[in-house]
Amino acid sequence: MNEILDEIIYENRKYLCEGQVASYIPELKNGNKDALGIYITTLEGKEYFGGDYYTKFTIQSISKIITLALAIMDNGIEYVFSKVGMEPTTEAFNSIVDLEMKNLNKPLNPMINAGAIAISSMIKGDTSEEAFSRVLDFVRKLSGNEELDLNYNVYVSEKKTGNRNRSLAYFMKSTGVIENDVEAVLDVYFKQCSIEVTCKDLSKIAAVFANNGVIPWTGERIIEKEVAQIVKTIMVTCGMYDGSGEFAVKIGLPAKSGVGGGILGVSPNKMGIGIVGPSLDKRGNSIGGVEVLKDLSQKLDLSIF
Amino acid sequence: MNEILDEIIYENRKYLCEGQVASYIPELKNGNKDALGIYITTLEGKEYFGGDYYTKFTIQSISKIITLALAIMDNGIEYVFSKVGMEPTTEAFNSIVDLEMKNLNKPLNPMINAGAIAISSMIKGDTSEEAFSRVLDFVRKLSGNEELDLNYNVYVSEKKTGNRNRSLAYFMKSTGVIENDVEAVLDVYFKQCSIEVTCKDLSKIAAVFANNGVIPWTGERIIEKEVAQIVKTIMVTCGMYDGSGEFAVKIGLPAKSGVGGGILGVSPNKMGIGIVGPSLDKRGNSIGGVEVLKDLSQKLDLSIF
Amino acid sequence: MNEILDEIIYENRKYLCEGQVASYIPELKNGNKDALGIYITTLEGKEYFGGDYYTKFTIQSISKIITLALAIMDNGIEYVFSKVGMEPTTEAFNSIVDLEMKNLNKPLNPMINAGAIAISSMIKGDTSEEAFSRVLDFVRKLSGNEELDLNYNVYVSEKKTGNRNRSLAYFMKSTGVIENDVEAVLDVYFKQCSIEVTCKDLSKIAAVFANNGVIPWTGERIIEKEVAQIVKTIMVTCGMYDGSGEFAVKIGLPAKSGVGGGILGVSPNKMGIGIVGPSLDKRGNSIGGVEVLKDLSQKLDLSIF
Amino acid sequence: MNEILDEIIYENRKYLCEGQVASYIPELKNGNKDALGIYITTLEGKEYFGGDYYTKFTIQSISKIITLALAIMDNGIEYVFSKVGMEPTTEAFNSIVDLEMKNLNKPLNPMINAGAIAISSMIKGDTSEEAFSRVLDFVRKLSGNEELDLNYNVYVSEKKTGNRNRSLAYFMKSTGVIENDVEAVLDVYFKQCSIEVTCKDLSKIAAVFANNGVIPWTGERIIEKEVAQIVKTIMVTCGMYDGSGEFAVKIGLPAKSGVGGGILGVSPNKMGIGIVGPSLDKRGNSIGGVEVLKDLSQKLDLSIF
Repeated sequence: MNEILDEIIYENRKYLCEGQVASYIPELKNGNKDALGIYITTLEGKEYFGGDYYTKFTIQSISKIITLALAIMDNGIEYVFSKVGMEPTTEAFNSIVDLEMKNLNKPLNPMINAGAIAISSMIKGDTSEEAFSRVLDFVRKLSGNEELDLNYNVYVSEKKTGNRNRSLAYFMKSTGVIENDVEAVLDVYFKQCSIEVTCKDLSKIAAVFANNGVIPWTGERIIEKEVAQIVKTIMVTCGMYDGSGEFAVKIGLPAKSGVGGGILGVSPNKMGIGIVGPSLDKRGNSIGGVEVLKDLSQKLDLSIF
Repeated sequence: MNEILDEIIYENRKYLCEGQVASYIPELKNGNKDALGIYITTLEGKEYFGGDYYTKFTIQSISKIITLALAIMDNGIEYVFSKVGMEPTTEAFNSIVDLEMKNLNKPLNPMINAGAIAISSMIKGDTSEEAFSRVLDFVRKLSGNEELDLNYNVYVSEKKTGNRNRSLAYFMKSTGVIENDVEAVLDVYFKQCSIEVTCKDLSKIAAVFANNGVIPWTGERIIEKEVAQIVKTIMVTCGMYDGSGEFAVKIGLPAKSGVGGGILGVSPNKMGIGIVGPSLDKRGNSIGGVEVLKDLSQKLDLSIF
Repeated sequence: MNEILDEIIYENRKYLCEGQVASYIPELKNGNKDALGIYITTLEGKEYFGGDYYTKFTIQSISKIITLALAIMDNGIEYVFSKVGMEPTTEAFNSIVDLEMKNLNKPLNPMINAGAIAISSMIKGDTSEEAFSRVLDFVRKLSGNEELDLNYNVYVSEKKTGNRNRSLAYFMKSTGVIENDVEAVLDVYFKQCSIEVTCKDLSKIAAVFANNGVIPWTGERIIEKEVAQIVKTIMVTCGMYDGSGEFAVKIGLPAKSGVGGGILGVSPNKMGIGIVGPSLDKRGNSIGGVEVLKDLSQKLDLSIF
Repeated sequence: MNEILDEIIYENRKYLCEGQVASYIPELKNGNKDALGIYITTLEGKEYFGGDYYTKFTIQSISKIITLALAIMDNGIEYVFSKVGMEPTTEAFNSIVDLEMKNLNKPLNPMINAGAIAISSMIKGDTSEEAFSRVLDFVRKLSGNEELDLNYNVYVSEKKTGNRNRSLAYFMKSTGVIENDVEAVLDVYFKQCSIEVTCKDLSKIAAVFANNGVIPWTGERIIEKEVAQIVKTIMVTCGMYDGSGEFAVKIGLPAKSGVGGGILGVSPNKMGIGIVGPSLDKRGNSIGGVEVLKDLSQKLDLSIF
């Protein structure tokens, strides 16, 4: 299996030069454009890996599925989806149009920035520090990695340059979607995006979703089955930015990408998949990572459809 | 099993009064608002049914998945998706905005009217009569029902009042998506929508998709596996109009609805499901049918996620 | 005065090479890119001219102000503006978005294609031939040129390639803005756009508007004062496609352009101005013509603001 | 003349009950819904008035024409319009759609909130206090009323509830339209909107524009002629929110309204007009004020078209 992974990685390195490392903040520009790696954790406890699987990167938008699960457990399905919709969108991920024209009172789904910021505002905690601390604990438990922490430079940079997200948040404040203090909410959001991981960590988190919310290596239920199912469904319909439809057709797995170069993929009842590849296509998905996941899905016949 | 189905039908009849029968053409207004029925065909050859399963109705938008499969087999995946996209949309099903603003050269997906009309233009045939005749033969084979035919009054009515679709088609003609004669293409489209079926027919067609393209009762492969998979994926992301995201979360099955009141649902490797219920919610989905499918999916744990 | 005009023409010829002759139909491609000319008719009966004022071209969108005046006189102000709005738009002239998103039942104004087609559908006449014949008579009277006629090749070409306009018209048919037969309405529209003129003709028509609806050379009132005023107002707010705002600031005159290269400008109570220059800027306005009108407006202090 | 004004006021009081006082901040809700008044200052120095002309109200959006003139004089025409467009819009005044979809780098015009906030960011001053102080001095000079000041309660309220404007401003910060500190810019904007005036003050300011930038009662040029002309043009095309087109047709005067209930109207080379009437139509224009101005324009034949 490790050989298969190495081969898949080898064959898809050629795409890296066609992409670009994210550059909207200086810290992301330092991402290694040449890196491409994969890590798999099966539900029977086996682990496989290939390529540059040890590369560190910030989790970015992949954190959105984690806070979604936590927010639903904090507030209930009904409350969360009274504030944020479930519908896919063809707008870019940071679009205000979707917010304004289609539904004044609800961002379309929890995977676009507006929806994810609204989700972050629902994480319980007396202060924004406490709310983020609960997010971090949750990620550490899901990944089985107590060392996980935020990359402080990335966080500061996100906060400093995040005026588009600030604009989205104030818009939602004005329509009542966000009820608490905007800067406090954004602080949680910028921090959650700045958590530093490897693709091993992503594969562990994915394995918990593949296992319907039960941590495979401890047997502990950490997410309710229904919540895990909702999150996986939204990953299929909205997880890969405005390329979600094509991704579903070509790969057929619940997945979520981040501009740090990570992709988290779930093969239900089988395995969790983590991929790293900071060279991005123009939609913001890892250009090599998408190809790696496509090859893997076809070779192992993983499509859920 | 028939008892379970009868019970599910019984419990969801209460929603019928909240909906409306489609009324944009007089013929559809005659649909029986009180009807609600289901028919299931399993891959092992068992058949179950409940409620008003014998009710006849026109297939309408459910025909879009059938012409999609045929058009891909006629033209290849690459050609078809060079003309029509794969992305979900949050606009209403007959929207021109999506055509114009997001991608001048491509309707977003084959389930919105624009995309479906473009798909119809790709069905091979020397004349529009021949093209439709091929569609009808294909539907008859998929359903195992050689009696299937179009409802002529509905067809004439669609053709007479179809100016919004005519507008979409001329727009695509002007951008080059449609290459042949607009009225000929629309004729195929209006005819395919007017094919009269029962939910038994739908369940048979669905069973072929559930069986990855092989007709369960003959063993004949009629659709390539990859094509069946693509169609099922697009049903999940785009099949239920602008309610597809919510439908995926709550039901988790590839499905396609039509304003005649039908829903075709696929439980991969298990069964094909046909539902009838002409009372529609405001998105155009059978209001009772969606509830029936939700109950069925939960009772039998059918979600693919 | 003729010297001033020659000088203005001379100094603005340099812009011609930066533009493009309209090319959406072959006949327009034959327009003379190098031509630039002006003709002025004052209310006291003086005429001035400069450059290539004898160049023939088709009137195209400039016909929209003429049919607007005629349609108001045929149907009354209230009826016309119950079907078509009065608001400027920032969309391109042939946009469907404006039709669909902002007001399902009304094109935004009579200067965009959708609005102009709706206006054409209101011209009285038992047949489309009779309706167009009334338009042609009206143009001949306004210009004092009984020889004016349509350029048949341009008309045939417009009709053959006019699928975008056909799409707009069927959309309006589906929403009830257009009440009569779509192809008959389009026939009037394509014909009115194909009337062949010189900038002398435009200057005469403009002089009638400058004179509040009274033909200066006969003293006959041909347009009611209020109607002439409405048309001039709409020329200011919507006459120069999506560049109307900038045009108003820089030139400050009621004006209407056409892709044949003409501009008709009105200096209220003073003079009518006709300009020809088939080399167009990217908005579809005569690139040299706009500069000529700007220089003229500044030199003679013509701005109405 | 005063009799004519009293009569016009008397006849249009009937519309007041159909409108609503602005209610997005509590302070505006206190506006007198029954008030309707007018004040006219002619260029020969005569003053006329009628109705409740002594009513005080906050200037709100009418301040946008004043800061526009000041910003152009501070920065030059070219710089200002490299940051903000000149095109009318059919979106509501606080729309983000226009910002995002049509031109990422430029709000459409200086009369929508986004454009006006961008204009406020260009007012020179070492601090936001100094910038506002320059605006206040300018308004005092234009109105000849040294007593003018801001209504502190309205200002505090605007600042506290202004999250939609904050969203617009952060959006423009993210695209580079706004270069300085967002909260400082908003402070100037909220203050300028909160200046308290009477319709006498508005009529004086309008008279300066009617006089092409020269204060009629002192002879001092305070605005360059070209700048005054630009401001008047933009008032015609964009001054009355999304009702500007209809307003131009029916009234034909450069005018600007505010949600405090004021309308400032300019009759070039003749007079300045100030109107108060806090009962607003659904677009945000004084419902009685628009009717008063229409009657006045028709009675005195003031339309510039």
